[in-house]
Amino acid sequence: MPIILGPNRYGKAETRLVRVTRDGATHHLKDLNVSTSLSGAMEPVHLTGDNSAVLPTDTQKNTVYAFARKHGVDQIEDFALLLARHFVGSQPTIHHARVEIEEYAWNRLPVTRHSFVRDAGEVRTCVVHHDRDGRTTVVSGLTDLVVLNTTGSEFHGFVVDEYTTLAPATDRVLATAVTARWRHTGETPSHASSYARVRQSLLEAFAGTYSLSLQQTLYAMGERALQTCEEICEVRLTLPNRHHFLVDLTPFGLDNDGEVYHAADRPYGLIEGAVLRQDAPDAAFAWE
Amino acid sequence: MPIILGPNRYGKAETRLVRVTRDGATHHLKDLNVSTSLSGAMEPVHLTGDNSAVLPTDTQKNTVYAFARKHGVDQIEDFALLLARHFVGSQPTIHHARVEIEEYAWNRLPVTRHSFVRDAGEVRTCVVHHDRDGRTTVVSGLTDLVVLNTTGSEFHGFVVDEYTTLAPATDRVLATAVTARWRHTGETPSHASSYARVRQSLLEAFAGTYSLSLQQTLYAMGERALQTCEEICEVRLTLPNRHHFLVDLTPFGLDNDGEVYHAADRPYGLIEGAVLRQDAPDAAFAWE
Amino acid sequence: MPIILGPNRYGKAETRLVRVTRDGATHHLKDLNVSTSLSGAMEPVHLTGDNSAVLPTDTQKNTVYAFARKHGVDQIEDFALLLARHFVGSQPTIHHARVEIEEYAWNRLPVTRHSFVRDAGEVRTCVVHHDRDGRTTVVSGLTDLVVLNTTGSEFHGFVVDEYTTLAPATDRVLATAVTARWRHTGETPSHASSYARVRQSLLEAFAGTYSLSLQQTLYAMGERALQTCEEICEVRLTLPNRHHFLVDLTPFGLDNDGEVYHAADRPYGLIEGAVLRQDAPDAAFAWE
Amino acid sequence: MPIILGPNRYGKAETRLVRVTRDGATHHLKDLNVSTSLSGAMEPVHLTGDNSAVLPTDTQKNTVYAFARKHGVDQIEDFALLLARHFVGSQPTIHHARVEIEEYAWNRLPVTRHSFVRDAGEVRTCVVHHDRDGRTTVVSGLTDLVVLNTTGSEFHGFVVDEYTTLAPATDRVLATAVTARWRHTGETPSHASSYARVRQSLLEAFAGTYSLSLQQTLYAMGERALQTCEEICEVRLTLPNRHHFLVDLTPFGLDNDGEVYHAADRPYGLIEGAVLRQDAPDAAFAWE
Repeated sequence: MPIILGPNRYGKAETRLVRVTRDGATHHLKDLNVSTSLSGAMEPVHLTGDNSAVLPTDTQKNTVYAFARKHGVDQIEDFALLLARHFVGSQPTIHHARVEIEEYAWNRLPVTRHSFVRDAGEVRTCVVHHDRDGRTTVVSGLTDLVVLNTTGSEFHGFVVDEYTTLAPATDRVLATAVTARWRHTGETPSHASSYARVRQSLLEAFAGTYSLSLQQTLYAMGERALQTCEEICEVRLTLPNRHHFLVDLTPFGLDNDGEVYHAADRPYGLIEGAVLRQDAPDAAFAWE
Repeated sequence: MPIILGPNRYGKAETRLVRVTRDGATHHLKDLNVSTSLSGAMEPVHLTGDNSAVLPTDTQKNTVYAFARKHGVDQIEDFALLLARHFVGSQPTIHHARVEIEEYAWNRLPVTRHSFVRDAGEVRTCVVHHDRDGRTTVVSGLTDLVVLNTTGSEFHGFVVDEYTTLAPATDRVLATAVTARWRHTGETPSHASSYARVRQSLLEAFAGTYSLSLQQTLYAMGERALQTCEEICEVRLTLPNRHHFLVDLTPFGLDNDGEVYHAADRPYGLIEGAVLRQDAPDAAFAWE
Repeated sequence: MPIILGPNRYGKAETRLVRVTRDGATHHLKDLNVSTSLSGAMEPVHLTGDNSAVLPTDTQKNTVYAFARKHGVDQIEDFALLLARHFVGSQPTIHHARVEIEEYAWNRLPVTRHSFVRDAGEVRTCVVHHDRDGRTTVVSGLTDLVVLNTTGSEFHGFVVDEYTTLAPATDRVLATAVTARWRHTGETPSHASSYARVRQSLLEAFAGTYSLSLQQTLYAMGERALQTCEEICEVRLTLPNRHHFLVDLTPFGLDNDGEVYHAADRPYGLIEGAVLRQDAPDAAFAWE
Repeated sequence: MPIILGPNRYGKAETRLVRVTRDGATHHLKDLNVSTSLSGAMEPVHLTGDNSAVLPTDTQKNTVYAFARKHGVDQIEDFALLLARHFVGSQPTIHHARVEIEEYAWNRLPVTRHSFVRDAGEVRTCVVHHDRDGRTTVVSGLTDLVVLNTTGSEFHGFVVDEYTTLAPATDRVLATAVTARWRHTGETPSHASSYARVRQSLLEAFAGTYSLSLQQTLYAMGERALQTCEEICEVRLTLPNRHHFLVDLTPFGLDNDGEVYHAADRPYGLIEGAVLRQDAPDAAFAWE
C-alpha cells in the first residue's frame, strides 16, 4: 500500500513586528508576534524538493513588514485578514492561509508623548541581610519593567575600530527591561511609599532623558532616584538594550521613516552600573 | 596545602506563599515567592555530615507560613526583616540570614470584593483562516489572564472510588490562568469593541459565579460571553486549576481559617471545554 | 437559539512520577510526567455544578501513583493504556480517557549501581577576566548536570525547633541539578583534559559519597575535584535539592518501600558553597 | 554629598556563534553563546552621553565572529582569553574585559560525516486514547531532538514575488528541533523496540537525505519510518527551521566559506506535515 503525503503547511513563525505611528509629537505603538502558514498543492516540494510552488517563509516575513508599512496596524484580526487574503489572492499555488498574531499591550508613560511601559507583569523584589553582629541591609527592587521610547535617543561618536560596521544613529528606538535594586541607608519608615517613589523616579528619568547612550539613561535613572528618595544610598541597574532594528523596505519601493521595526531577541547590548552617594556606607554583601 | 571550606549558605528557595486577609466581605491578597538562606558555623555538616547545627530547609519553609499567619504580610521588606531576625535570634548556630522575596501584583476585579486579576501580562491573540473557496474564519482570544476568587467556591459531591483521598471543600480559593478563544460568526464590525466586551464578560462571569466546580465556572464564562456578544458563536476555554492548598499550621498551635496558602505548581487540574450556539456553523479548522 | 456545551474534558496535568525498582543493589529508574483527561456525560457539572459524575483530578493523580506501585512502569505506552482502560472501565460516567506521558531519560553513573545522570543537555561554561594590570582569571564550569542517587543518603540529627515537622530520614533519594564553577590557579595547559577530569571527579564524588546531608556531598564533590586536578584552586557549587517525596499509598492498601516518588518543583532546598585550597590566591572578581 | 558613578560594565550578551570546520568531508562543529563585557573610564558616557570611550556592543559582536573565522574555536576558555586580551590590548579606554561563554554539546550522527545531534535532553512522549466503544489509539513520539547537517542542503527555484529578497542557496546549514509523533495501527508488541526503530529511521533519513527543501527532508523522514516500521501507519512532524545565517565578514577583509554562522532565534520557518499509509484507518482524535 503506497505511502502518501497528508495534511501539511509551512510558514514563518514569530515575526516580531513593532509598528510606530507618529502623529506629530504623539506616537502610537503596536507590538505583535506574527506567524503565517500556507498550504496548497505541495506534493512536488515534499516528494522531489521541487520548490516551484513554494513562497519562501522569508518572503512571508517580508510581506508582514511591508504590509505594516503600507496599511498600518490597528486591530490584529484585520491585519491578519489582510495578510491571509494577500497570500491566497496573489499565489495560485496557495489554497489556504493561516495567520496567527499575538499582541502585547503597552501603556503610556507620563512626561512625554513617546514613552511607553509594557503591561507585562513586573515583579517587586527585596533582599534582606541580617547577622549576629547587628548588621542589617535592605535592598529593594523590581524586575521585568519593560519600557520604550520611540524617539529622543541617539547613538554616535563611539570608538571606530577595524571591526566596526555600526552606523551612527541620530534617532532610534530605545527599549529595555529594567532590573533595578536600591539599598536603603538605614531603616526606611514606609516601604510602600519608598517603593512607589523610587519606581516613579526611574520611569520619569527613563522617559524624560534625551539619551545619547543607554549608559547616560542608566545614570540618569539612578541619579533621579537618589535625588528624590533620601532614604536610599545606592541604585544598581541592569539594562538589556532591547534592539529594535528599522526594517529595510527599499526593495519593496517603500520608505521606512521610523515606522516598522524588527524587535530582536539575541544578541542584545547589556548595560550594568551602580549610582551611589559618595558617602554611602560600605555593604558589598547587601547585593549578594 | 590543606583544602578548606569557603563561604557557604543553605536555605529553602521559592516558598510560594499566598496570604489572604479577610476584612468582612472585603478580602486582601498578597502573593509572594520567599527564599531564605542561612549561614554560620557549618564546617561539621560539610566535613562529616553532622547536622547538629542545621535548621532544616523544611523548617525554614514552615516558619515562612507560620509567620505569615501570626504577623500577616504587608510590605515585603518588613516581612523579610522579621524572618531574618527570627532565624539569627533563635538559633545560636546561625550567624547570618538572607531573605529574598518576590511579590506579584494583583488588581481587584469588580462585581465582588473577593475577586482579583494578576497584573501579569496577558496577551491578546487571534487566528485567521482564509482559503481559495472563500471560507474565512476569525478566532479571537487571550491567554495568561490570571484570576482568583478568595471565596465563593466549593467542591464536593464527586465520585468516590478506592483511590479517592480528597476531602470535600465548602470554601476554597479558586484560581486559574485563562486561555480563551472565541469564534466570530461572520464579519465583526469592530474588533476593538468586540474584544473588550468578551474580555469583560469572561471576567464578570468568573468573579460573579458562585462555583461548585471549575467546570461550572467555565461554562458560565462561555455562556456569558455568548449572551453579551452577538457577533460570536463559540467560546473555547482552557482553565488550569491553580491549586492553592491551605497550609496545616496546627503543629505550631495556629489555626488557619483561610488565611495562609501554598500556591502549588504541579500537578494541576486542567479543565477544557467549548460553549457554543446550537446553530453555530461548522468550522473545525478554525481552531487549528 | 440555545447555548449548549461542546466538546470538553478534564483531568490532572503533569503528575511528576519517579518509579524506582530495586533489584538487589541494582536499581532502575523511570522518570515520567503524566497527564490524564477524562470525558463523558458532563452536562450536569457544567450547567449546575453537580459533581456526581466527576472523578476528581486529585483521584486521577492518586491512581497514577498507585498503579505505578502495583504494576510498575516499563514502556510509557503500556502504562498509559493501563490507566486509560482503568478510568473507562471503572467509571460508568467516563466515556473516553486520554493519557499523555513524557519520559525523561537517565543514564547510569559508574561507581555504584544506584546512581544516575539525566540525559538533559548540561552546558559547559567559562568566565574569563583580563585587565590592563595583567590580572587574568579563568573560571570553568558546567550547569544543568542533573544527578540522582536512589539510596545511600540519610538526613537526621538536625536542629529541632517549634516549627519543625520534618521526620528524620535514614534512606532517601538524593537528587540535584549541579551548577559548578572552578577557578584555575594559573594557565592550564589543556582545558579539554582539565574539564573532563573535573567533571569526572564531581560525578564520582556525587555517586560515591554516602551522604548524611547534601552539604556533605557538596564538600566531597569540591574536595575530590581539587584532589584530582592540580591546576584548579577553588570550586563553587550550587546544588538545589530536588526533593523526591515518597508517596503515601497506605489509603490504597499499598506499601511504598522506596518505589514511588513525587518529584516536586517548589520550594526546594538550595545548598551553596565554596571549597578551596588554603593558599588559593585571592580573586573575588573572578566569580562576577 | 555628591552622587557618583559606581562599578559598571557594558557589552554584548548572547552572541550565538556556530563555527564549522571542514576537514574534507569530515566536518566539526562548535556551538557557543558568547557574552562580552567591558569596563574602563566610563564617566563621560554615563554623565554626558559622550561615547568617545565606548567600543559599541555591535563591534564586540563583530569581533566574536571575526575571531572565530581567523582563529577557529577549540576550547572555550582559550577563545574567551583571546577575546578578552584583544579588547584590553587594542582599546586604551578599556581597562577590564569579561568574557563568558556557554558551549552546547553535539554528537555525530552516523550515515554522513556532516550530520550532528545536539546533546540536549530530547523527551520521549506518548498519547493514548481509549473509549467505551472499544476504540483505542496509541501515538508515540519524541520532542526536542535537535539535529543539524553542515552541508547537503540547498534551497532555490522557489516562487519570486514583489516581496522576495531571499537569494537562492546551493549549500546551506540545515538544522531543526524535531517533534515527531507516530500512530500505531494496532497493538504494537514491543514499544521499546518500536520506539528505537522509529527514532533511528528519523535520524538516518535526516542525515542521509540530500535536501532541496526542509519539506523534502520532512517527507523522507516520515517515509523512512513507515518503510522501516510495519506497526505504524502515520507520522506527523513539526520541524522548525533553525536558521543559521552565514555572517558577512567582508568588512573585515575575511571570507566566510561556510565557517562562521549566526544561529538565529526568531523568526523561524516552520514546516509541518503528515506522511501516512494510504490505507491508514481514520483516527483524527488520536492526535488531540
